[in-house]
Amino acid sequence: MQFGTVATARASTAGPSTAWTSAAARTPEGWRALPAPDLSAYLAGGGTLGPDTALGELLPHARPIAPLPSPAKVVCCGLNYGEHIRETGRELPTHPTLFAKYADSLVGPDDDVSLAAGTDVDWEAELAVVVGAEIRGADRSTAAAAIAGFTVANDVSVRDWQYRTLQWFQGKAWDRSTPTGPVVVTPDEVDPTAGLTVSCRVNGEEVQRDSTATLVFDPADLLAYISTFTVLRPGDLVLTGTPGGVGTARDPQRFLADGDVLETEIEGIGLLRNTIRLTD
Amino acid sequence: MQFGTVATARASTAGPSTAWTSAAARTPEGWRALPAPDLSAYLAGGGTLGPDTALGELLPHARPIAPLPSPAKVVCCGLNYGEHIRETGRELPTHPTLFAKYADSLVGPDDDVSLAAGTDVDWEAELAVVVGAEIRGADRSTAAAAIAGFTVANDVSVRDWQYRTLQWFQGKAWDRSTPTGPVVVTPDEVDPTAGLTVSCRVNGEEVQRDSTATLVFDPADLLAYISTFTVLRPGDLVLTGTPGGVGTARDPQRFLADGDVLETEIEGIGLLRNTIRLTD
Repeated sequence: MQFGTVATARASTAGPSTAWTSAAARTPEGWRALPAPDLSAYLAGGGTLGPDTALGELLPHARPIAPLPSPAKVVCCGLNYGEHIRETGRELPTHPTLFAKYADSLVGPDDDVSLAAGTDVDWEAELAVVVGAEIRGADRSTAAAAIAGFTVANDVSVRDWQYRTLQWFQGKAWDRSTPTGPVVVTPDEVDPTAGLTVSCRVNGEEVQRDSTATLVFDPADLLAYISTFTVLRPGDLVLTGTPGGVGTARDPQRFLADGDVLETEIEGIGLLRNTIRLTD
Repeated sequence: MQFGTVATARASTAGPSTAWTSAAARTPEGWRALPAPDLSAYLAGGGTLGPDTALGELLPHARPIAPLPSPAKVVCCGLNYGEHIRETGRELPTHPTLFAKYADSLVGPDDDVSLAAGTDVDWEAELAVVVGAEIRGADRSTAAAAIAGFTVANDVSVRDWQYRTLQWFQGKAWDRSTPTGPVVVTPDEVDPTAGLTVSCRVNGEEVQRDSTATLVFDPADLLAYISTFTVLRPGDLVLTGTPGGVGTARDPQRFLADGDVLETEIEGIGLLRNTIRLTD
């Protein structure tokens, strides 16, 4: 099944319709409401995503926005696509490389990505995992059972800031830099470990394409590993790393310009289409 | 002035007294209540810390606990003490090295620090800055004005996990690893840029001592820099880095053992006294 957070219109008795958001399920007839203003609130309140989820009213003019607007934790993995690591001549890592970003970094499937002019802005198409249950010190099977679903993300990175120091965080945690969505697809519908095609396009030109089957650490591995040192709770988000083809690794290097259209797609989940805005 | 979050006892009409927490101000007569269950909630609700803060009832048997239990952002700086950097022969950094940890990492001034047996646990005494106003793209003077106060922290680090990969996060973000408190002291009482002595002791033996006057990036510098890429809000916490003397840099290396007592002190702010618990 597919879930998300949607912006819709609600007829107001007091006057014109007002903008309104709701957690929702995508059904053949359209988006149906879940009893929370967004999926973060729905999952935090104990809601689950699956065939037993009770669906409410059909929502008119619903448009998916960032599915998880307020995860307490957004943990990201780097260097996780085997084919890409092998082609660069490196050995496969024995442990995942992890860093954090914030809920403030997240935008929706067709929002602008707003960054500072004069910085080196690069793409990173990624599968993101939505946590659905609280886990601490989980083994692989407990971690797998704690996955609520999968969504698409682009870990857009400000490379000059990322490489100013040894720690990547300051190039990764910019507000409104990370598109997510359009939907959260439950594990019964997609299996990243078996392989989903991840691709990224800039102004229509494909710049990344790989299969999630080549992930060194798959979603269950990552959740189990992270839960060794910090609890994961419903609504937390784990980004699984990007395949080869990023702009900083090209010769010559290539970065995003103001007005560029960035498309990020994962087979069976959906498409993000975001315009880059670089402002002074 | 000095503020904090305290555990106290409230007489219950229904039976025996129940454990209870409150944001509070330390006055000559004792702790007086602020209208929130803790300083995180107080600051998030628009409360300010200063001479105009309205004080409530005197709280009986109050004991300071972690002052900020739920910051949305805990940003940490590494490699920030000039004397220590110079003595290692490195050049002074041009940009702060930043990484993140979580509210789940924080414990109070006399809580146990609970980590996994068999890991390399090290001390890092640090000054922490409490954000008191929302800032984005702040200059130095705006950032300075946004400081609500200062507290003591120990960025206790799991070195073997920190150095498993290039990114330190997984050695820094362990739950219940980072003592904080005992109070938040407002900027009219202490001036870290002029110099406060930071010290750390293990079982009574001094292992770190330096002055915050040698910080390469002082509190206002750090808040301004971070606010360039992500908004800081009331209650967020910024850890400013640790002086020389950590266990991993010693020859031979020295790490903390189960039962060790870690004391972290900053002149004019206070003392943390935490027992290390390493369990399977």
